[in-house]
Amino acid sequence: KLKETASQILCAAPWTLLLPEFTAAEHLCGHKGQLKISWLLFVFFSSDIEISRAQSPKAVDVLAKEIGLLTDEVEIYGQTKAKVRLSLLERLKDQPDGKYVLVAGITPTPLGEGKSTVTIGLVQALTAHLNINSFACLRQPSQGPTFGVKGGAAGGGYAQVIPMEEFNLHLTGDIHAITAANNLLAAAIDARILHENTQSDKALYNRLVPVVNGVRGFSAIQLARLRRLGISKTDPGSLTEEEIHKFARLDIDPSTITWQRVVDTNDRFLRKITVGQANTEKGFVRQAQFDIAVASEIMAILALTTSLQDMKERLGKMVVANDKKGEPVTAEDLGVTGALAVLMKDAIKPTLMQTLEGTPVFVHAGPFANIAHGNSSVLADKIALKLVGEKGFVVTEAGFGADIGMEKFFNIKCRASGLIPSVVVLVATVRALKMHGGGPNVTAGAPLKKEYTEENLQLVADGCCNLQKQIQITQLFGVPVVVALNVFKTDSPAEIDLVCKIAKQSGAFDAVPCDHWSAGGRGAVKLAQAVEKAANQKNSFKYLYSLELPIVEKIRIIAQKVYGAQDIELSPAAQSQVDRYTRQGFGNLPICMAKTHLSLSHQPERKGVPTGFILPISDVRASIGAGFIYPLVGTMSTMPGLPTRPCFYDIDLDPITEQVKGLF
Amino acid sequence: KLKETASQILCAAPWTLLLPEFTAAEHLCGHKGQLKISWLLFVFFSSDIEISRAQSPKAVDVLAKEIGLLTDEVEIYGQTKAKVRLSLLERLKDQPDGKYVLVAGITPTPLGEGKSTVTIGLVQALTAHLNINSFACLRQPSQGPTFGVKGGAAGGGYAQVIPMEEFNLHLTGDIHAITAANNLLAAAIDARILHENTQSDKALYNRLVPVVNGVRGFSAIQLARLRRLGISKTDPGSLTEEEIHKFARLDIDPSTITWQRVVDTNDRFLRKITVGQANTEKGFVRQAQFDIAVASEIMAILALTTSLQDMKERLGKMVVANDKKGEPVTAEDLGVTGALAVLMKDAIKPTLMQTLEGTPVFVHAGPFANIAHGNSSVLADKIALKLVGEKGFVVTEAGFGADIGMEKFFNIKCRASGLIPSVVVLVATVRALKMHGGGPNVTAGAPLKKEYTEENLQLVADGCCNLQKQIQITQLFGVPVVVALNVFKTDSPAEIDLVCKIAKQSGAFDAVPCDHWSAGGRGAVKLAQAVEKAANQKNSFKYLYSLELPIVEKIRIIAQKVYGAQDIELSPAAQSQVDRYTRQGFGNLPICMAKTHLSLSHQPERKGVPTGFILPISDVRASIGAGFIYPLVGTMSTMPGLPTRPCFYDIDLDPITEQVKGLF
Repeated sequence: KLKETASQILCAAPWTLLLPEFTAAEHLCGHKGQLKISWLLFVFFSSDIEISRAQSPKAVDVLAKEIGLLTDEVEIYGQTKAKVRLSLLERLKDQPDGKYVLVAGITPTPLGEGKSTVTIGLVQALTAHLNINSFACLRQPSQGPTFGVKGGAAGGGYAQVIPMEEFNLHLTGDIHAITAANNLLAAAIDARILHENTQSDKALYNRLVPVVNGVRGFSAIQLARLRRLGISKTDPGSLTEEEIHKFARLDIDPSTITWQRVVDTNDRFLRKITVGQANTEKGFVRQAQFDIAVASEIMAILALTTSLQDMKERLGKMVVANDKKGEPVTAEDLGVTGALAVLMKDAIKPTLMQTLEGTPVFVHAGPFANIAHGNSSVLADKIALKLVGEKGFVVTEAGFGADIGMEKFFNIKCRASGLIPSVVVLVATVRALKMHGGGPNVTAGAPLKKEYTEENLQLVADGCCNLQKQIQITQLFGVPVVVALNVFKTDSPAEIDLVCKIAKQSGAFDAVPCDHWSAGGRGAVKLAQAVEKAANQKNSFKYLYSLELPIVEKIRIIAQKVYGAQDIELSPAAQSQVDRYTRQGFGNLPICMAKTHLSLSHQPERKGVPTGFILPISDVRASIGAGFIYPLVGTMSTMPGLPTRPCFYDIDLDPITEQVKGLF
Repeated sequence: KLKETASQILCAAPWTLLLPEFTAAEHLCGHKGQLKISWLLFVFFSSDIEISRAQSPKAVDVLAKEIGLLTDEVEIYGQTKAKVRLSLLERLKDQPDGKYVLVAGITPTPLGEGKSTVTIGLVQALTAHLNINSFACLRQPSQGPTFGVKGGAAGGGYAQVIPMEEFNLHLTGDIHAITAANNLLAAAIDARILHENTQSDKALYNRLVPVVNGVRGFSAIQLARLRRLGISKTDPGSLTEEEIHKFARLDIDPSTITWQRVVDTNDRFLRKITVGQANTEKGFVRQAQFDIAVASEIMAILALTTSLQDMKERLGKMVVANDKKGEPVTAEDLGVTGALAVLMKDAIKPTLMQTLEGTPVFVHAGPFANIAHGNSSVLADKIALKLVGEKGFVVTEAGFGADIGMEKFFNIKCRASGLIPSVVVLVATVRALKMHGGGPNVTAGAPLKKEYTEENLQLVADGCCNLQKQIQITQLFGVPVVVALNVFKTDSPAEIDLVCKIAKQSGAFDAVPCDHWSAGGRGAVKLAQAVEKAANQKNSFKYLYSLELPIVEKIRIIAQKVYGAQDIELSPAAQSQVDRYTRQGFGNLPICMAKTHLSLSHQPERKGVPTGFILPISDVRASIGAGFIYPLVGTMSTMPGLPTRPCFYDIDLDPITEQVKGLF
């Protein structure tokens, strides 16, 4: 009864309505029968941050108790965030997993079609309205775009993670830890080259293996390097000159360095720089670049790792350059594995937050969706699947359209985790479908053309080819798909019906319109019901390709079966990289395509379902620690810029109330 | 009784002794009669991190309660760290302050003489042994040196902050927040120059003041800029072309940019770089540099600010460059003040930790001691002075020797806070005194010469001139001084007596040997008693110079009265900067000398008390937001490097126990 009243208050309040009073309501729902959601709703305002602020989040220790965490499994960070320790996985190892739902999307407009709000709306509906335990697992947003063009990324309207300013700012410091680890490794590379170039073998060796308090010994990481070099000695005095040479010199070829420095700032002037120009660096200048922090391979590792031990191994395996003989040089060779693991020891723990309706959310990792796999962490999903219990649901999200984010989710993330997804929710909007049907360009910042704000059934019908294709891509993996039509107020009932009809005809298990953005969880109840049914369907999940296939063959399978390309064409540089990685023993890794998300093809302007194109592979790179090869389809920017008028013009802090303004 | 037993266990255990059992003890002491210190001591190991780990810290929420914090004044970060909200200052505003003690030092060897361990030993003695409420306020160490040469900075032996790995690593993210804020501003500068150079006045204005949902308006920060420009209009459509030009163009002269990017990593290859070399930046390359994060002016601001409002104002006032007319361009002009304040909103809250003996510590801010003032935060001191109560003690520390850190503490930090120090503790070692007396060079990494390990009364007696001079410097400020002789095991009783005798003859209120490093608080009980007595002495604290004096005059006073220089000599560049700052209205700021800490003079090799030298001022710079002018005496490196064998070779993480190894 209480719950119903609360929901009604929430749903009866259109988000733009200005009410002169506020209403408090409290409702109970079914997280193990004990999830008590207290909330206080002020419907005074209309922007995302104002909605976020109007809801007082419950204390995170209360939330942690509600979802069954023990006190020593939780590390509180202030009132609204907590890190969850991995020991929980050991405690709950015999607990069966819940259902695993992926939210993906059709090929989007540059504005995005609302996968995050669907994810949050869906768990709000499941937990707070259908009494089914559920968890949302989301990516941590980069701080760069928050102050640049994009603004925050906590969902929106009445389907948000709160407090959104905590979600969008430092959170619990994971991206900062990645930055620190990434840049320590970068500094170690250049410093090592300088030291090797300015010292004899003997001097180098004496410094690397010094006498300390009269004793000379190798450190553990140096002994490991000796073993890799086939030297079984442990007494520093017993190495031959040749062995000293092999041990002390990494002999890095500066022109092959692939490890870049990072900052979590949109700083376009760092896209190409020259480093080492001070006199102290003795002329060892070279050209380099900074990427945005979330493009670091360490972020991709954080998202894919399954334990502290596994993370440490992956960090050690990261290849940063080749030596002058063409052999890979790793973080382990530089002696920095342990330090990187130390810097990342807290970042490996997922961060617990809550939705606007008080249901639990994990925020953990946010790798790039082009040069990396664009999915939140394996560990958050695994922990959440234990916490929700066998009948519960974990909902996570894949970056970009299903052709990119979902394909990587299945072939890379599910391979790393061993988890089997139950359902795919494919998010579509009438707006994006009209664009695919031949509607005019959609550009961020410019007002939408009338085709998008008035009914146009023909454009919708024509554009559904993209939806149909993305449904077919999902079916390649044997997982049932539910289409979630994210409804805007300008969508007509006929347009909505048409999309749902075509979706079902195209093989979707179901297709339902959703109003979570304006109505919260209640607006996604039908979607939640459809997802619950679909999760009980027969599931014949399979990967798209075998890892044993040659690199080029794996790329071709993705290009043809997923993108619909006629074939692929490798540049000579790409072919030579493929040959190199194969020779170096990295041929059995999965593929992480770096392709535009604005088209199924490599050409952003080709909407709908392009055919007959040859996908050009300009280069091929590798993230050996993360565990994938990434072919570049065109150039990918790894450092956004600031526009003439960045978001920060509107961002302010009230020094009295300590409230953040202008984040949205 | 219990307390005594506990102390005896602690003190009876020499830090190198290997005991086959561990002992648990619990004792009560007098923090408002309720400070209950639980501790568990394993004396298995000998390195700092092993001592740190052997002591289980009490839960930080327990500590917070013991020292009288209310639940809503504390933001817990994990089990052992918490941030304290500034609202406490309002609640306790009528509470009288405690005594305020500064720990400074004589001119040190490159190894440092133990100011941090004295600070911690002293509060351990006061609180856990003399039942007097006390607080240590320390600087947060930079993460760069932790992985480079220096290792951790949490004190050492039995006078440590624990857990030392938390202290030395990310802590609660303040330095990361500074990095983010600093680099957002840096990115904004270059992006703004690019946008101004590639757009007409009109295009620039249209982008800066766009039509949003049919409405065009200035943001709050833009209205403030209009007011500064003397334009009182508020309708964007009403500006004249000239006003649009003035408003839209900052017209930054790239050659005058003083704002640098930062990373918290020892990355020597970033000391001098060229940025903007990608095609997207259209040829606007320029030479720049990265500093280590703690060298950021934002760090200096964090250390000097007194409230959120004050911090926001200081951030806005930071001068980043001059325009082409020679007028200063500020963060406020770039529209980024609010965003910087938002990024720093949590960093402004001091972090609560504890000593090895369970007494409270604030860790907050850690500005460079050369280009900045090298003192921890005003806010931590202010909060701690309220918490300890009228009879309690707050002990804080100033970087480098008293000629640098203490002088800045008095003239810069005390001016910002309005607080009046009660006592100065001047730390000396027999080792440093012998060096000043003509002993051989002391170098980091090399074994000490026998002069330092065998009794040599003559060297000690000759070197006491430096101690005497530093005592005299302290007396310039009218504050009583207690000399703390930090005893090493090689110091002979005669050497120790000699130093104490000379110190007292030279005007010290008292001089006592301390064994806190090997014996914890018990080893500093005599020091604590002397400090308590000195705090009741007549105190006639005064600043060294009036702010109204011309910049050059203020520099001369410091050089002559503190350093003992005959005079100063400004380079033409320095003189022209002085003229510029004076003209720009910044002449009334205090002075923050950037001078070597290894000599009272500008020449590191001149030990003892150099005389007859002319102090050369090569350049003069300004941190307008932090609020000081900093003359450069020689070149100051603002970016350390990594040696051939960095500390990280020994740092590792045990993936099973999650313990950090090799930090020390």
